[in-house]
Amino acid sequence: MIETPYLLFLGDAPDMLAAKVAQGIKDWRPEYAVGQFRLPGCKADMGLPDMTLAEAKAAGVKTLVIGVANRGGIVSQSWKKVLVEALEEGFDLASGLHNLLRDEEDLAAVAKATGRQLHDVRIPSVKYPIANGEKRTGKRMLAVGTDCSVGKMYTALCMEKEMRERGMKASFRATGQTGILITGGGVPLDAVIADFMAGSIEYLTPDNDADHWDLIEGQGSLYHVSYSGVTLALVHGGQPDALVICHEPTRPHMRGLPGYKLPTIAQVRDTALALARVANPACVAVGVSINTQHMADAEAKAYLAEVEAETGLPATDPFRYGAGKLVDALAAV
Amino acid sequence: MIETPYLLFLGDAPDMLAAKVAQGIKDWRPEYAVGQFRLPGCKADMGLPDMTLAEAKAAGVKTLVIGVANRGGIVSQSWKKVLVEALEEGFDLASGLHNLLRDEEDLAAVAKATGRQLHDVRIPSVKYPIANGEKRTGKRMLAVGTDCSVGKMYTALCMEKEMRERGMKASFRATGQTGILITGGGVPLDAVIADFMAGSIEYLTPDNDADHWDLIEGQGSLYHVSYSGVTLALVHGGQPDALVICHEPTRPHMRGLPGYKLPTIAQVRDTALALARVANPACVAVGVSINTQHMADAEAKAYLAEVEAETGLPATDPFRYGAGKLVDALAAV
Repeated sequence: MIETPYLLFLGDAPDMLAAKVAQGIKDWRPEYAVGQFRLPGCKADMGLPDMTLAEAKAAGVKTLVIGVANRGGIVSQSWKKVLVEALEEGFDLASGLHNLLRDEEDLAAVAKATGRQLHDVRIPSVKYPIANGEKRTGKRMLAVGTDCSVGKMYTALCMEKEMRERGMKASFRATGQTGILITGGGVPLDAVIADFMAGSIEYLTPDNDADHWDLIEGQGSLYHVSYSGVTLALVHGGQPDALVICHEPTRPHMRGLPGYKLPTIAQVRDTALALARVANPACVAVGVSINTQHMADAEAKAYLAEVEAETGLPATDPFRYGAGKLVDALAAV
Repeated sequence: MIETPYLLFLGDAPDMLAAKVAQGIKDWRPEYAVGQFRLPGCKADMGLPDMTLAEAKAAGVKTLVIGVANRGGIVSQSWKKVLVEALEEGFDLASGLHNLLRDEEDLAAVAKATGRQLHDVRIPSVKYPIANGEKRTGKRMLAVGTDCSVGKMYTALCMEKEMRERGMKASFRATGQTGILITGGGVPLDAVIADFMAGSIEYLTPDNDADHWDLIEGQGSLYHVSYSGVTLALVHGGQPDALVICHEPTRPHMRGLPGYKLPTIAQVRDTALALARVANPACVAVGVSINTQHMADAEAKAYLAEVEAETGLPATDPFRYGAGKLVDALAAV
């Protein structure tokens, strides 16, 4: 686990989009986001107090999180200066960059000398077990997608927020880099060795209270031929009680695969449900989450009504219209 | 690729079963198996000429293959003496042991000094791409199982032998350690990083002649919750034209999972076929391979007739009764 709270390092972000990790932390774990650190020329702004390292220290910050993508995959010297100083000041560093902090010789040496942690969340830090398939206590929801990047993480985070507001016991369980940085822990599933994928999800979602819900971030799609194995490991390792089907309706083809059409919501529901019932015969599909960001309000609402009529399941865009319908359905399981 | 031919190192194998890798090479690639090397007390015998290293050298051997499991996971000093001498004599070493040869400091140092290769086939030696899902030329058969260890490798190897005898173009494609040592190459799929699983199978089974068949060794099972993700990566990365369903009928539960019953052959056929058609809409199930080793002849034959009646597919035990029926069905695709 990454120690909280965080100082969000925005570096020299050229725009807000480059700082989407910082935005995710600020949106979903505002209590972790104490301040931001910006270099000259930074065009991103989270609306948080700009802090020096000394101010962040005084405010109780434990970890400096790199909340921005680095241009060209280089950790520049202007970043390094801040990162080294942060280690010297006693902060840990956390990063989801492809280039690992630990592979930067200066950062590795200073971290060792100062006894600080470098959290490279892109790769696993745990030796996961092989899945044993044993039934675990507590309840689990898995977000399954028609495609990659259709809003599975946002769906699970929206549901967690709504459930906590209702006083329900719920934990978002991150399976990707951004989710891990947002919540401070999780499994970087795409980087796990094949034999241990399902076991890593069992590890991520252990026994819990009977009325507790793990809301498991999905990855890939059973219909995305590049990553479908990762998805099936989630379906079986997660042994979900409930599935929420996630879809983005304006996509012309599967992400990165021009020759592949998207499956229908009903296809994904039926395929995922049949496979999920191998691990948990009681699994049900409870709802549909639609990413309507490319649709006007009227169009989005008409589409949601259509999906409800076609699937017989409640459908919403939880980010735009709230996760209430999905949580109602989950509460009824 | 591992250079052939081989000298099979049987060490101090306590019985024949401990030398099953050597047995596999001798059974399936007899032309690679020039001789055997046994230590005092060895209880395994492949019926090959016992050779000194000098005799093996004179016979043209390129690689000493560890064809035996090591007791307690230790590469003992009595083994080391032979392995070091083999490197000094100019042989490469190949091993599927859990303990890697490269992690033995003496072997690593001698290999470096002599310029010889240490092939640890348990882990990948290639940086595989992410799967692109593009249609490849040539044809592919994938063996899919109701469970782990039901005879998928033997099924594919039996079919390859039968096809070559008929003058058909066929290549067994290994996806596990034993298969890699038998054929000299392949992908150790269970050790591949999640994101690259399907890509590793695309890499393993590239474009080929229109009338060439890749016979892809299956792994795990879509119904085995510990490894199902690995299986789905094979179904999508392999983009098979034909599936052969493999089953062992006497098993009380899924291997290693006492709480899980085996699926039926028809369930595996239907589930695998629906998923395979995402990558290759023309995929068909052509036959059933039954591992009847725990059944008497009459019982086995009655069971095969029953499977044929139930599934409408040709069924055989290819190791016991020949792979003719399966190859006939493949030839008709």
